Amino acid sequence: MLLRMSTLFLRTLRDDPADAEVPSHRLLARGGYIRRAAPGGFTWLPLGWRVFRNVERVVREEMDAMGAQEVHFPALLPREPYEATGRWTEYGPNIFRLQDRRGNDFLLAPTHEEMFTLLVKDLYGSYKDLPLSIYQIQTKYRDEARPRAGLFRGREFTMKDSYSFDVDDAGQERSYQAHRDAYERIFARLGLEYVIVAATSGAMGGSRSEEFLTPLAIGEDTFVRSPGGYAANVEAVTTVVPESIPFEGLAEAHVEDTPDTPTIDTLVTVANERFPDAGYTAASTLKNVVVTLVHPDGRREPLVIGLPGDREVDAKRLEAQVSPAEIEPFTDFAAHPDLVKGYIGPQVLGTQGKAGIRYLVDPRVVPGSRWITGANEPGRHVFDLVAGRDFTWDGVVEAAEVRAGDPAPDGSGPLELARGVEMAHVFALGRKYAEALDLKVLDENGKLVTVTMGSYGVGVSRAVAAIAESHHDELGLVWPREIAPADVHVVATGKDAAVFEAARSLADELVAAGLTVLYDDRPKVSPGVKFKDAELLGMPTIVTVGRGLAEGTIELRDRATGEREEVPVADGAARVLAAVRG
Amino acid sequence: MLLRMSTLFLRTLRDDPADAEVPSHRLLARGGYIRRAAPGGFTWLPLGWRVFRNVERVVREEMDAMGAQEVHFPALLPREPYEATGRWTEYGPNIFRLQDRRGNDFLLAPTHEEMFTLLVKDLYGSYKDLPLSIYQIQTKYRDEARPRAGLFRGREFTMKDSYSFDVDDAGQERSYQAHRDAYERIFARLGLEYVIVAATSGAMGGSRSEEFLTPLAIGEDTFVRSPGGYAANVEAVTTVVPESIPFEGLAEAHVEDTPDTPTIDTLVTVANERFPDAGYTAASTLKNVVVTLVHPDGRREPLVIGLPGDREVDAKRLEAQVSPAEIEPFTDFAAHPDLVKGYIGPQVLGTQGKAGIRYLVDPRVVPGSRWITGANEPGRHVFDLVAGRDFTWDGVVEAAEVRAGDPAPDGSGPLELARGVEMAHVFALGRKYAEALDLKVLDENGKLVTVTMGSYGVGVSRAVAAIAESHHDELGLVWPREIAPADVHVVATGKDAAVFEAARSLADELVAAGLTVLYDDRPKVSPGVKFKDAELLGMPTIVTVGRGLAEGTIELRDRATGEREEVPVADGAARVLAAVRG
Repeated sequence: MLLRMSTLFLRTLRDDPADAEVPSHRLLARGGYIRRAAPGGFTWLPLGWRVFRNVERVVREEMDAMGAQEVHFPALLPREPYEATGRWTEYGPNIFRLQDRRGNDFLLAPTHEEMFTLLVKDLYGSYKDLPLSIYQIQTKYRDEARPRAGLFRGREFTMKDSYSFDVDDAGQERSYQAHRDAYERIFARLGLEYVIVAATSGAMGGSRSEEFLTPLAIGEDTFVRSPGGYAANVEAVTTVVPESIPFEGLAEAHVEDTPDTPTIDTLVTVANERFPDAGYTAASTLKNVVVTLVHPDGRREPLVIGLPGDREVDAKRLEAQVSPAEIEPFTDFAAHPDLVKGYIGPQVLGTQGKAGIRYLVDPRVVPGSRWITGANEPGRHVFDLVAGRDFTWDGVVEAAEVRAGDPAPDGSGPLELARGVEMAHVFALGRKYAEALDLKVLDENGKLVTVTMGSYGVGVSRAVAAIAESHHDELGLVWPREIAPADVHVVATGKDAAVFEAARSLADELVAAGLTVLYDDRPKVSPGVKFKDAELLGMPTIVTVGRGLAEGTIELRDRATGEREEVPVADGAARVLAAVRG
Repeated sequence: MLLRMSTLFLRTLRDDPADAEVPSHRLLARGGYIRRAAPGGFTWLPLGWRVFRNVERVVREEMDAMGAQEVHFPALLPREPYEATGRWTEYGPNIFRLQDRRGNDFLLAPTHEEMFTLLVKDLYGSYKDLPLSIYQIQTKYRDEARPRAGLFRGREFTMKDSYSFDVDDAGQERSYQAHRDAYERIFARLGLEYVIVAATSGAMGGSRSEEFLTPLAIGEDTFVRSPGGYAANVEAVTTVVPESIPFEGLAEAHVEDTPDTPTIDTLVTVANERFPDAGYTAASTLKNVVVTLVHPDGRREPLVIGLPGDREVDAKRLEAQVSPAEIEPFTDFAAHPDLVKGYIGPQVLGTQGKAGIRYLVDPRVVPGSRWITGANEPGRHVFDLVAGRDFTWDGVVEAAEVRAGDPAPDGSGPLELARGVEMAHVFALGRKYAEALDLKVLDENGKLVTVTMGSYGVGVSRAVAAIAESHHDELGLVWPREIAPADVHVVATGKDAAVFEAARSLADELVAAGLTVLYDDRPKVSPGVKFKDAELLGMPTIVTVGRGLAEGTIELRDRATGEREEVPVADGAARVLAAVRG
């Protein structure tokens, strides 16, 4: 295919658009690949759509190769199936809901577990029909509170979502692994670095879940990895729990006046002045943080998190634990006189405590651990308060921040933290959806058994953004060959008709050989502007036909390495083909 | 590609689904091509999705070949651009509207004129950039009052919509013609018969408009054609207007008692009894029909249509004339005492008349024409009431039914009526959208001129339905080669392992040659069921490998013609390839 820049619907921009926050968005907008059309909604221009379709093709080929079958659902769906699984409510404000002219409730589907489950129930009834993996590549909608970072977090985007159906857990494990393997091949072909991390399942439910993260500085997700190969989404990291300590011989708790100790630091200073040999640190204190849980039905519940004073609550880790509820700051001390702001101690907490507020503690708060914490009186703290002896709790929660240097839960060494973007997710859903929607098949013995499912998603539009984000330099985009909008960019410079003839003839020869050629045939544009555009647009191979033609040469340039080479014009096509075909 | 029926996500049904009203829906559902997922929303199963993508490919290839460039817009769009052109209101209840979490208004776009206009305005500014044709293949939404006929009229469907931008009318005419030609090629490749008819522009505005109708008995659109080649959507047919008649010498109007004449027939009988030489017919009477116009802003206005008594008001023709207003029955005679039910006459009508109600007449009501009509008193009619002399009107309206035998407006003979389905529409929009959204470019003289546009749509999902509707027999579907989900259906019958080996080997050979093969490898299914399925599924070529194999032969069958032929197994692949490649 020949794409002539003189007629191509394209305008490159010299300046970054004002609303572009990240490099990929800046370069895709400047290069005329995408254009903002709505809050969180983008229009794909011709070159961008070619990249999109290349990514889609790679995903489709790998899904087909693993034996998954493509289907296609509506995006506009009735409320009822989502009501049956509870997700109509659980999604809260994150989905778009609407009514038709008769007042019936609909949603724009964010994912399709319910519909796939119902479809399989509709068509299949026997263990002989399974295993089955079906997928779609489809437009999805989420009412993001803060659409940002261009294509990374939009309100309308494209995902490949697949669903596996198996009669037993071993089958489900094979389906899960087959998707995981297919995803590894997809990311390799897309030229996207990835780390597979353990993840929490969130609103999806289910037992096992991993994310494919692409390490990127602009990423919203923090993940950890250890020298020994452990990797996890920070929400999924489990704390290494210290051993419990017998109560025997532990000192009695004692309340001390601790005036002017509004912070953990001032408290530690006062404590060490009072007990010079104790060697207290912030980790000796137990901080009790009050938050408001907002349940999907709108109910608001105060909740206290107890954690070592040297750590903050990580809101994303906490939200992953309490999902589908959400977290808001707690401010209503007036309604809870038992909560003495700045001096809250566990003695009044817990559903059985005087304040009657649910109390969850960090896993480090093991029975026998000793703490300095609030005495529930202004200006006073209690010392040597022993967990399990002097106070109890309603449960344990992974809500404390994870720090570089923390031990990996599998003993594989200290964790390092990095930022990444979630590109794909594999979930072992188990039987949650099949049970809610009654998907059963007859097994070998003629008995009805509930099907076990998996759900697997790859962000297709997001992959375009991630590729741009990880394949560019200061001059512009540097597309990997597999997904570049054209195989080669032929640039004709100057005003000499012979140059344009030679360039067009080369372009035609390459098109005839099956390549897609972007041909800069603009008659009145300076060589400087053409070169800048070629660098910005980022085709993997750039051929310049210009002044050298008089000596019978053209220039081949590799966009990624910057290597340039003069080659005889007669060898041009063959050399380009060799470069493209590796 | 090899599609094995033992693992294909497919269940054929012996019985028609209860909700399937038309043959295409029945067969596509029975053949496991589609499945209803929501009111007016369908899921494409694997074979159906292959057909869909084949249609999409044909459309894309022809659009690319004519030089149109593919882009892709969001479907979820903000209110503002549609407000600027008035369509936010004009679409009334026919679009889906919704709000995001901040209460901002959005719609699910039914077409994208506004967004394409704004995009071109954003990127282009000179006559040198034009002409431009850009298109997308995209999911569209309409809140249909009555989704029906399966894929023909859904609430979520796929369209190819393109838009052309030209600096002058001559350019617009070329762009229009280029799309019209491309559509002719598309329908020819899809195997869809079509008639190009003159159409009204409706809510789109614009000057010239034609529809591609596929003649189908289940069609909702009535169109007309004449022996001389005239063809039009019935909404667009213009009446041949009789000549005006001088008033001189015409009798004076006279009121007569006409008791017991509740219908036109009884009135004509009484009139002929009273004046035996007059030879009155129903066409001698002037019927005045009251309707309620519902404007997009909700305002309700009574309107009277005057037309010859031998014709009914055609609601679709009337609605096309008054769009974007809609028509409802008029019932509120109580509020309008000047309207004497059954005896309404034009003397009180018109915005200047006593009743103060707008009055539009059929084009046959020319000055000097004489009528028997209501005298605005119960039981009385007026005779020899002369149009233009005894009464006036506010305008002329094409609202009377068109009948077989009516003259074609271009003099090309009597009209015949047929039913069809609108498959595509080409509109010369003119400058309506460019003016509303201020799309101007600099012309050769450096002067700003408003761009002229066209808008062109092809129903992609509807095309699948229309192909099924027009390519089937009593046994099942009969796909044209270009869009069949597989090139050939290889059926292995019986239990002989050698049969399955030979069938698989043939299938593999055909796949290696580039064909898509549907292979019925189901081990425990009877030959009768397999043959029935093959007929229902409708691949163009069916190969049976079965008992004949012992004598070294297999059977080739052409699904469309029913022709069967025994061929030596060794020639099988070559013969199939010859059939497929024509």
